[in-house]
Formats: sequence, structure tokens, C-alpha cells
Amino acid sequence: MAKSDLMVKTKIDDLFRLNFDGFRKDFLLSWDKSADDIQAVMTLAEILWELHNDNVGLRVFRTGLAVSFFRDKSTRTRLAYASACDLLGLTMQEMDEEKSQIAHGETIRETANMISFLSEVIGIRDDMFLGRGHNFMKEVAQALDGGFAEGVLGRRPAVINLQCDLDHPTQTLSDLVHLKNYFGGLNELKNKKLVMSWAYSPSYGKPLSVPQGIIALLSRFGMDIVLAYPENYDLVPEVVETAKKFSRESGGSFAISHDMKAAFKNADAVYPKSWAPYWVMQKRTDLMYNNDQKGLRELEKECLDQNARHKDWLCDEELMKTTRNGNALYLHCLPADVQGLNCLEGEVTLKVFEKYRVETYKEARYKAFVIAAMIIICCFRDPVAIIDKLFRENLNRAG
Amino acid sequence: MAKSDLMVKTKIDDLFRLNFDGFRKDFLLSWDKSADDIQAVMTLAEILWELHNDNVGLRVFRTGLAVSFFRDKSTRTRLAYASACDLLGLTMQEMDEEKSQIAHGETIRETANMISFLSEVIGIRDDMFLGRGHNFMKEVAQALDGGFAEGVLGRRPAVINLQCDLDHPTQTLSDLVHLKNYFGGLNELKNKKLVMSWAYSPSYGKPLSVPQGIIALLSRFGMDIVLAYPENYDLVPEVVETAKKFSRESGGSFAISHDMKAAFKNADAVYPKSWAPYWVMQKRTDLMYNNDQKGLRELEKECLDQNARHKDWLCDEELMKTTRNGNALYLHCLPADVQGLNCLEGEVTLKVFEKYRVETYKEARYKAFVIAAMIIICCFRDPVAIIDKLFRENLNRAG
Amino acid sequence: MAKSDLMVKTKIDDLFRLNFDGFRKDFLLSWDKSADDIQAVMTLAEILWELHNDNVGLRVFRTGLAVSFFRDKSTRTRLAYASACDLLGLTMQEMDEEKSQIAHGETIRETANMISFLSEVIGIRDDMFLGRGHNFMKEVAQALDGGFAEGVLGRRPAVINLQCDLDHPTQTLSDLVHLKNYFGGLNELKNKKLVMSWAYSPSYGKPLSVPQGIIALLSRFGMDIVLAYPENYDLVPEVVETAKKFSRESGGSFAISHDMKAAFKNADAVYPKSWAPYWVMQKRTDLMYNNDQKGLRELEKECLDQNARHKDWLCDEELMKTTRNGNALYLHCLPADVQGLNCLEGEVTLKVFEKYRVETYKEARYKAFVIAAMIIICCFRDPVAIIDKLFRENLNRAG
Repeated sequence: MAKSDLMVKTKIDDLFRLNFDGFRKDFLLSWDKSADDIQAVMTLAEILWELHNDNVGLRVFRTGLAVSFFRDKSTRTRLAYASACDLLGLTMQEMDEEKSQIAHGETIRETANMISFLSEVIGIRDDMFLGRGHNFMKEVAQALDGGFAEGVLGRRPAVINLQCDLDHPTQTLSDLVHLKNYFGGLNELKNKKLVMSWAYSPSYGKPLSVPQGIIALLSRFGMDIVLAYPENYDLVPEVVETAKKFSRESGGSFAISHDMKAAFKNADAVYPKSWAPYWVMQKRTDLMYNNDQKGLRELEKECLDQNARHKDWLCDEELMKTTRNGNALYLHCLPADVQGLNCLEGEVTLKVFEKYRVETYKEARYKAFVIAAMIIICCFRDPVAIIDKLFRENLNRAG
Repeated sequence: MAKSDLMVKTKIDDLFRLNFDGFRKDFLLSWDKSADDIQAVMTLAEILWELHNDNVGLRVFRTGLAVSFFRDKSTRTRLAYASACDLLGLTMQEMDEEKSQIAHGETIRETANMISFLSEVIGIRDDMFLGRGHNFMKEVAQALDGGFAEGVLGRRPAVINLQCDLDHPTQTLSDLVHLKNYFGGLNELKNKKLVMSWAYSPSYGKPLSVPQGIIALLSRFGMDIVLAYPENYDLVPEVVETAKKFSRESGGSFAISHDMKAAFKNADAVYPKSWAPYWVMQKRTDLMYNNDQKGLRELEKECLDQNARHKDWLCDEELMKTTRNGNALYLHCLPADVQGLNCLEGEVTLKVFEKYRVETYKEARYKAFVIAAMIIICCFRDPVAIIDKLFRENLNRAG
Repeated sequence: MAKSDLMVKTKIDDLFRLNFDGFRKDFLLSWDKSADDIQAVMTLAEILWELHNDNVGLRVFRTGLAVSFFRDKSTRTRLAYASACDLLGLTMQEMDEEKSQIAHGETIRETANMISFLSEVIGIRDDMFLGRGHNFMKEVAQALDGGFAEGVLGRRPAVINLQCDLDHPTQTLSDLVHLKNYFGGLNELKNKKLVMSWAYSPSYGKPLSVPQGIIALLSRFGMDIVLAYPENYDLVPEVVETAKKFSRESGGSFAISHDMKAAFKNADAVYPKSWAPYWVMQKRTDLMYNNDQKGLRELEKECLDQNARHKDWLCDEELMKTTRNGNALYLHCLPADVQGLNCLEGEVTLKVFEKYRVETYKEARYKAFVIAAMIIICCFRDPVAIIDKLFRENLNRAG
């Protein structure tokens, strides 16, 4: 048995031992999932990754639709979703709110049913307005529950969160797979110091989903988490509370710092990234619902001015030298605001970014496999049997 | 043999006995098809539906393209077409008139040939301008005839009408399958009273294709049809004549009423839906071709004013009480203008709509299977052999 | 063995004898490829064409992505690419620069890696600005080299030029297959006179890629090429030099003429088509990069005025009578500016165009198979084995 085959076999055994349950369930917020649910996604994602690299075909659907709703621009997540669907044999069908009649008097309930007659999964991205994205996904999910209960739908498609206002689980699980592989296993993450830090960006209104998703996910694996940001740049308090609770339960720790330099000291991994304070995001949603264009422009100006006071929240070489052995792993969901590359002043200097560029690319590449794993877990009663069959059949994907 | 298998087997035998002929033919207007042609589509659609629900793979194309031209916004028909194509193994390729060069000096003949080298089917929606949609489809069809005769095309793709100015056969055949199943068989439709009624909508210029398609289709199955509308809201006279002729031939009846209340009395099924008078639609087309924006605005205002005089054409509970046992089946192609849900005054009250909401969803879900049936009948010389093979092979669609 | 089977078998033997090498290489400019590389694409394209016509399934990918970047409008090339991908079992995923974040601070290097994790091929069209298209493709290709070397990408996708500022190889190879079949073999092209001629068009700024691609490709097969254009309408000098060199090497000839009538005398094939002088295309690029809207408008006016002085560069019946036996083959990449069909004054008269219309359609239909051939040659170490397997397995594509 080849080395990669052995690795896959071991991971299939790992998956078998996990007590996970995702069949006909959605994947909306990582903190609503059990630790085994999360490990199952990770493990299956790695199995799919290994098999794909060995040119093993992973087509588990002869035909089938995967609907996507992207309510914001997206290159990476869109392509990762498209890749995952193709990998498993699903056809992605984009619902473009402009082309369609969604805006023309359809209720969410009706639309959700109409798009689900032949669909296996519905991927949604809706991250720009606090209070909207997750609620929209829940509304869709409830409509699907209704359609299934009423006999309209023969099968209940799964809703997958491709980034909402609160969480970005397909991203943060990719980050976690990367961390795990970089440090040599999930157990190696225990009491490693991870700093999720705000950083300056010339743009405005970056979503909260990544920093929130990161602290609420990594806190489950015993890491020592420091959440660093300038005063008033708070995340949604409930999510921070969740992260604290998870840290206590997992034997890690959780601290908040308003001093980037202090936070970075002896860090094992750092995730410097801009976001907007949650109360700004809330205000913005209110203004948007009132269609208050003047208010939105004023808020933007106010926030950019506010941001400009914190240009020193920059991940530069000097700061990186203060991390563990001057060698903390730099993480980012990309694209980063790289000073001297795509902006004059940003989240990270070009030198630091270049040092870790390849690592950030590797961090990104798990996303499609994480999504594919979620789809298999949502759509099949016995995912272990499904993946075991693919492994044994060993059909060529290409050629 | 399982119960669903027996049902499928029976229907395959039914299909075998029908004298239909659709190979390399288009599906443009239901009234140009024989009754057996229509029953074949229905029967095959139901077989596909049953097999799909039993997780039987229906991939009859290893590869192949299905082109779609949507000249109007569409959620449902677009997704139904995408679903049908995926179900059979075709890749849908959308021709977006904005992205493409169609508007840049290409003739329809040239475009039709260029998009057909590897295509099996061309689905077109063009319903907004009376005198355009069906004519455009015929032009495409003629171009394909030419391309095939001239040896440009190795195979002549079928054109499928996904809604034109005159008819909407994929919708009305779904409606018919629903009616058939609701009442317990095609024979049960004989002398059932169906009211196709105009109803008030706050919007303007709704196409004629559904009411025309409904009266011209259901009149073939012996129903007692009442077409109800305020004076001057006439449908295209030739289509009404066709419906009358079909009614005579099928042993049903056909009447026109200008009194919604009288029409609904003792009805077995009602289809209240707004449309614009055919002479308005004609005028609108003329104005559009002359690019007379002022004229178009004036016509819109005039028609909205005209509509506003008929707000009492509303399907409410009181009216529904007057139907057979107070229990007529409410039909709609969706989305409906539901008073109190997506408009202040509309086609139907929320209470009536809610009572029949699940039924309207079920009515909608056949559309993808109707389209898939049309594709199989157009693309294969022996559709019975094709479906019989799928039934016998019994390959899992998922897993 | 059926006649078409014998033909395919012969061509597979031809392919086997060619000394070509395209595995994990791009197809950017035809003149950077060896003659055997080009013949391999042609031969494989014809094999795929024959097999497809015989309903042989050509799915060589169980799953896989083909990314497309279209930076300009396109009907035909877009659909040809979609057709080729579908034919081989790849899913085309369009990168829409508006929908995506490409414009938002991503570097080409990063984007190229992000879209390539699961991709087999990246097709790019970028032809409007001289100095941009080919350079963009090279940048993407270099980024992919980097990603593969750095271990980010498990496999290095191939970049395929779907039209750049310099060359349009998928078009010109289709033209060449058509010429070859029309004249009865590649050897029959030797010392046939081909005129690539400028012709009047009412539009402005048509790309140079087709005329350049034509002279640099056909010069390799011993044709006597005359490049005809009004003074000052020069092509990029380096490309013309390349064509001259190829002509010398292949035993053909190459001449430039500024007299359309003289050029057409005794021609065996003519390709009358408008383009903009290369120095205009260069100026336009500079103005665009400086966002000089006024300058762009002035340049457009100047060029249209300049063009208008050459309305006599028209391919009409009289001119065609002067060709060999009055019967030269008319070539065009379509859509043509046909006088009396889609413009008042254009490249060709309606009578001439109608006489050769079917031939131009046949010329166009090879494009999808040329692209498919490029994909197979780029993605598989042993394309002969791949195609031989498809031929032997002989699975039905449809049914």
C-alpha cells in the first residue's frame, strides 16, 4: 500500500470513530456544531484532498444541482464552491438576484421551495449587513423544513454558509486544517498562542465573520487566544462570550488586548486583519434598510477617519520579530491589504507578506475540500461508506 | 416489484402505446401538437419524476450542450430548464445578449448555426412583446433546418419554447399534470369546470402566454372551460378560436364571461391571473420597435388606470365559497400577486393563497420533468427504449 | 471497419508519428509552437470531430474545472470553449471581473493561484488593447509556474489563448483545418495563393489578432501569401517578419501589396477583413491606461475618417471574378460586415457572402474541436493513448 493510501486509510478510520451527525442538516455557524462534527468535516476534507491529488475520481453524484446565492462579490469562495460541486458531480446554478424575479414580489419561502425541487445543497453568501446574512440563511432553512414537511420537496437540501454576517466557517475550517498541518496535528495546537488582531485597512466596513469565526473555532482546540483591537472596535459580544466559554472547556485561554505590540509577543500564529466595529455594522444595516444614502456616506467618512487614527496597527517585520522565535505563522483569508503592493498603508508590509505568501496560498486551497466535505456529510446518511467506496474503486478522475 | 416500480412500468407501457412523434422536432405551441404528443410528454414527465424520487440516475447524455436564451427575467423557468438539463446530463450554456455579440450585426441565422455545432437543444424565453417571441423561435428553427440541410450541422437541435408571446407549454403541461393527479386521472377532467379568469394586479403588461396556453391545452381534455375577463381584456382571437374548436372536438365546452362571480359558480378549478389585453400588447410592441419611450410611458399609465377600475376582480374567500363544495382547486403559475403578502391589492387574498399554497408549489415542481421529457422526445428516435433502459439499469443518482 | 473508423484510425497513426510536445505547456502564440505541435492539434481536432459525429463519447475527465476569463464580448469563442470543455467532461467556470474581486487589489499572481487549485485549463480572451492581452496571459502563466514550483498547485493548469492582441490561434487553426479539407490536404496548400486583405468596415478598432495569426500560421505550410492593406494600416512588424521567415522556410512566398485589386488576381483563397493599424492600437492602449476619454474619442473619430477613405476596399463579385477561375475560397472568422445585411458599406457584398456563407459556417465549426485538442494535448502525457482508448471503448455520447 502506497504511503498516501495508508494516510487515507488511517483518516477513514478516524472519520469512522467520530460521533458526528450532519445528514440533512445545514452548516450555518461553527459554534452550533459539536467538536466531532467539525473534526469530521476537517478529516473528510483532508481525505478528499489526498484522493484528489492522487487523481482519484470523487464523483458521488451522477447528476444534481447545487444552488448558489451570492449577495456580495466573491472570487475565491465562489470558485471554491464551484470547485467543490464539480468535484462531487453537482452542477452549480447561480441565482443572480438581478436576473431573477426574487426582488419582484417573491417571498423567501416561495423562492426557497422553487429552487429546491432537484437541488442537493444551497450555498449562500450574505455577509455585508449585520443582522441580515445569518437570518436570511435561517429563513431559507425554515422554508426548506416546511417544504419537506408539506411533501413539496422529496428531499431537504442542505444550506451551507459561504459567509454570513456572523461566521465564515468554510474559511475558518480551511484555516484550521492549515494550522493543524503546519503545527503537526490538532493536539499540537493546544496552548499555542494565536493572535487574532485588528489591522489597519484603507477600506471600510470589512465584515466581522472571519475574526468572529476564528476566535469561536480555534478556542475549541485549546489554543491560547488573544483578540487584539483598538478600543471601540468590538466584535459581537455574544460571539466573544462563546469563544471564552469554548476556551475554558478546551483547556485553552482567551484574552482581549488593545495593544497590538503586547499581543504579538511570543505568538505562535498571528491573523492581522481589518474589520469594522459591530455597532458600525449594525448602524450601517439600519441606514441601508432606511435607504439613507446621506447617512451611509457620513458613516463611511466617520469610520475611515476613525480607522486612520490606527495606522500603527500594522503587521511589520519588527512586530513579527517579537513573536515566538521571530517566526510566528502569518495567517490571512486573502486578499490582504499589503502595504506597497495593493495599497500605500495596510494590514501587513510587503516583506512580511512575501515571507508567508506561499503559506497563505496553501491555507486557501483547502476551502473547496472543506465545502465538498460539508456537502457529503449533509447529503449522505453514511459518509464513511461513501468515501470508502471511492477509495476502493479508485477510478481515475482524468484520463 | 415495489409499488413505485409497478407504477413506472405501467406508465412505460402507456408511453409505448401512444402514437407520438417528436424526434428532431421543436416544441413551440401546444396547439400544433397532437393529443398523443402531449400525453407522451406528460407520461414521460411523470416517469422521470417517479424514477428521480427513487434516486434512479437519469443521465442519458454523457456530454452535450443545452443552450438557453432568456430575453426576460426568470427564476423558475430558468432553474427548471437548468434542472432538466442537469438531470439528463446536459450542460446548460446561457446566451446573454449583453455579453455576446448577438446585438452587433449578427443575423439570427448565423447565430443559430454558431450556437448549434455541439448542442442538443435550444431553450428560448421571449414573452414580453406580442408578435416577437414565437416569430423569433420560428426564425431560429428555420435557421437550424437550413444549417442541417446544408451540412453545417451534424444534428438538428430542438427548439423548446420556455415561454413566448403566445404560449407557455412547459408551464401549462405542469399545470395539466397537477390537475390530472389532483383529480385522479385525465379522464376525471372530462366536464370538470375550469375557470381561467383575469384578476387585478398592480403591475402592467403581464404576458398572455399562460391564459392562452391554459385554454388551448385544457380544452383538449373535455373540460368545461370558462374564460372570464373584464370587457376589452381579450386574448388573441385566433387562440380563443383554437380553444373553442378543441372543446367541441373533446366533448367539453367553452364559454366567455365578463362576470367573475358568475364564472366561479360551481367551478372545480380556478386560475385567476392578470394579463394585458392583446391589443395593448400589440401596441406596446409597435412602440418598442419605434423606440417611442414617451408612448410607452403613456400606454403604461393608461393601462394601469384601466386596470384600477377592475380591482374587484379578486379571488377571495367569498368567491371561493361559491365554487363546487366551496372547494375548487386554486391554480397559479407563480409568483402570484397576493394581497397582503407582496401587494396591497392583487389577484388573490392571502387567506385563499395560503390554503392552496402547498398545492401551487406541487403544481410548479413538474416543470423540470416536463422539460426533460420534451428533451428526450426531441433528441431520441426511441424514447421508450431510452427510459426503459434507465429503469432496468437502475443506477443510483446519488451515492 | 466502417469508412469513418478507418479514417480515424489513419489519423491516430498520423498523430502517433508526429513529434509534438504540449504536456503541461500553454498554447499562446502559434509561432512559438513547432510545425508538429500545430499539426498535432489539427489532427487531434479532426479525430475528435469524426468521433463526435459518430456519437462517440469523448469524456476524458470524470470531473474538473476549466476557468474562462473573457475580458471582451464574445459569442462564438465563448461557446466554442464551453463546447470543448463539455465535450471532454470539464465544467467551465467563468471569471467575471465585475462580479469578482479581481479589480479590488488582487494581484494577478494571487488570482492565478486561487483559481487553479482544481483547474485543468485557463482560457483567456483579451484582445482589445495592443500590449496587454499576450502580456496578461504570460503573467498568468508565470504565476502558475511559480505556484507549481512552490508546491501550492498539485498540477499546473494550461493557459489557452482564446484571442489576444497578437494572435487568435483557436480561430486560425480552425481556418487552417477548413482550408486543408477544402483543398484536399495540407500538401495541397503548397503554393496556393492566399490573400489576407484589409477591408472597409464602418466600425473602429478591430483587433490585429486574426490577420496576424493568419499570415504567421499559413506561411508555415508553403502558401503564397499576399498581405494587402491601404498604406499606414500596418500589422505589428515583428509578426510580419515572422511570417516572412516561415514563408522562406516552407518554400512559400510572402508579399505585401497596397492594391486590393492586384492582390486578388488569381488568388486561391481570400480573407478580406478589417483591422486597425498597429500604431492606432498602441495609441489607444496608452490613452486607455491614462484614462484619457477625450483622447480616445478623438482617436476614434480620426480613424473612422481615415477608414472612410478606403471604402473601395470591398470584396465584391467583380473582384472575386479576378481570382483563380473566378472561384477563390472566401474566408472569414465571422461575424463579417456584410454590405446590405448588417451594414450599408462593409467588408463584403451580400452576394459574395451568400455564395460562401455555408463554407464560412463550416470554417467556424472546427473551433470547439481545436480547443478540445489543445486541452487534451496540454493535460495528458500521452494524448495518443487517450484518444485511442476513446476510439476503442466506443461509448455512446447520447443514449
